[in-house]
Amino acid sequence: MQKIALIPEIVGTPGPGVMIYGEDERLSDEQLESCGFFVPHYMGAEPNTHLMARMPNLEVCQLLTAGFEHARQFLPSGVTLCNAKGVHDASTSELAVGLILASQRGIDDAARAMASGTWDHHPHESLADRRVLVIGAGGVGRAIHDRLLPFEVTIRMMARASRDGIATPDQLPVLLPQCDIVVIAVPLDDTTRHLVNAEFLSQMRDGALLVNVSRGAVVDTQAMLAEAGRLRFALDVTDPEPLPADHPLWSSPHVLITPHLGGNTSAFVPRARRLVLEQFGRWAGGQPLDAVVPLVL
Amino acid sequence: MQKIALIPEIVGTPGPGVMIYGEDERLSDEQLESCGFFVPHYMGAEPNTHLMARMPNLEVCQLLTAGFEHARQFLPSGVTLCNAKGVHDASTSELAVGLILASQRGIDDAARAMASGTWDHHPHESLADRRVLVIGAGGVGRAIHDRLLPFEVTIRMMARASRDGIATPDQLPVLLPQCDIVVIAVPLDDTTRHLVNAEFLSQMRDGALLVNVSRGAVVDTQAMLAEAGRLRFALDVTDPEPLPADHPLWSSPHVLITPHLGGNTSAFVPRARRLVLEQFGRWAGGQPLDAVVPLVL
Repeated sequence: MQKIALIPEIVGTPGPGVMIYGEDERLSDEQLESCGFFVPHYMGAEPNTHLMARMPNLEVCQLLTAGFEHARQFLPSGVTLCNAKGVHDASTSELAVGLILASQRGIDDAARAMASGTWDHHPHESLADRRVLVIGAGGVGRAIHDRLLPFEVTIRMMARASRDGIATPDQLPVLLPQCDIVVIAVPLDDTTRHLVNAEFLSQMRDGALLVNVSRGAVVDTQAMLAEAGRLRFALDVTDPEPLPADHPLWSSPHVLITPHLGGNTSAFVPRARRLVLEQFGRWAGGQPLDAVVPLVL
Repeated sequence: MQKIALIPEIVGTPGPGVMIYGEDERLSDEQLESCGFFVPHYMGAEPNTHLMARMPNLEVCQLLTAGFEHARQFLPSGVTLCNAKGVHDASTSELAVGLILASQRGIDDAARAMASGTWDHHPHESLADRRVLVIGAGGVGRAIHDRLLPFEVTIRMMARASRDGIATPDQLPVLLPQCDIVVIAVPLDDTTRHLVNAEFLSQMRDGALLVNVSRGAVVDTQAMLAEAGRLRFALDVTDPEPLPADHPLWSSPHVLITPHLGGNTSAFVPRARRLVLEQFGRWAGGQPLDAVVPLVL
């Protein structure tokens, strides 16, 4: 039996051994049985990772998300799991830079002042010359770093594990008081939940900006509400999410909120398509796969 | 007689031969007579370029602005005029990138939606993968180019004179229909007034974004009003300026306006101070000056 790849049409490139499937398409027993390389649906479509139980010849499950918890629970023994490494970096990192620039230069205030035709010219703090701390040195954190480099800033990176030039969490009490801008780009897990709490925020200098483009629960919302005004916040993610219309965060001073726009852009499809094509090529050619999720974490 | 430098306190660094003067300070005849290197006031303070008529030993006039018309009319014969080359590039270029990112990712709409607590999540066009045309290859244009480079975009530069890889105005009919984002970074003069007119705008593709961080009159406001909706606009400068409260541009669809925030940031003082110190050093050391304005234009 020749093994085939099952790939959603939104990211599939036709070719020998590739079966492209639609969002509402029902896959036959024969298709499932011959599947060796499976790409489950992306967000929006009905989850179909459970279909792996009916794929006795499956070798690789290639996800379109960075997270993988939803697939790991259905993963048959011996199947290699790969995530969408790199696919969401460009989109999320550019939003982080956009939130920084909007907050520094008052673009959000100017947008709000348009309704009353108010020309409110006053000086701002540039991004240039600011000291920026990026917490998280994965794909998104590194992409933020790379995009900030030409802006004449000083950038420090922080990650859990010490690497070349990257600070570790024990250095936060020294680094936080020195920084003008702190960007959160870590995945949410038990070790990062409420990483940004009252103590963390108390170490930030007056007027400093905290930007969160990861997951809302990395920041303690109550602690943030208590510091809004002394500190500034630019948030693409909140806890809870979506933020209820009557939540006090909406009207807190010096807070800018975007509704989880991080990864949901035109950047997704071409990057996901490229990753799937490359990974399929590696699998079909018997080469080692990229973006393999370590199953013992 | 030892010649001295007269430098405003906001950008002056004390040292031998340097006389720092305050915003309201009256300079004595003796000080004016011995002045060989003069830095007039920056914006905000009372203009004092006319004092050059009382400086018989003046050799250099170093401005803190990029423009120089206000000084040239008072410039004694034989005096070298220098402008503030590079001082405003970082501040203006980062605002241009901020306006691009805010417009692409809906940060302005999100800021406006906060008042009603509206979580309006929908997909946007990323900056990544866009084709950007930067018109103007001076300091600001090149600084915009350098800051956009890591965002996974395709960038074309355009300038009046053909240079290595830089397009010229005769290529606009080919380039404009191909571009998603057009950034204006040219000085205003007789050749650039209404450079962006109805014909220019008609060549831009549906949904494309025009960003102006130079001077309002480079764009024909009436032509822009006629295209707002089909095209998108992000403007730090307008014509007229300030924009009157009842001007239709404020409420035109897909228009984002900031109140001429380009150069007015914390980035000014350290860069101006550095330029003045370097130029003073060159003058005192008898070396050729940088940023010399050609007096026959």
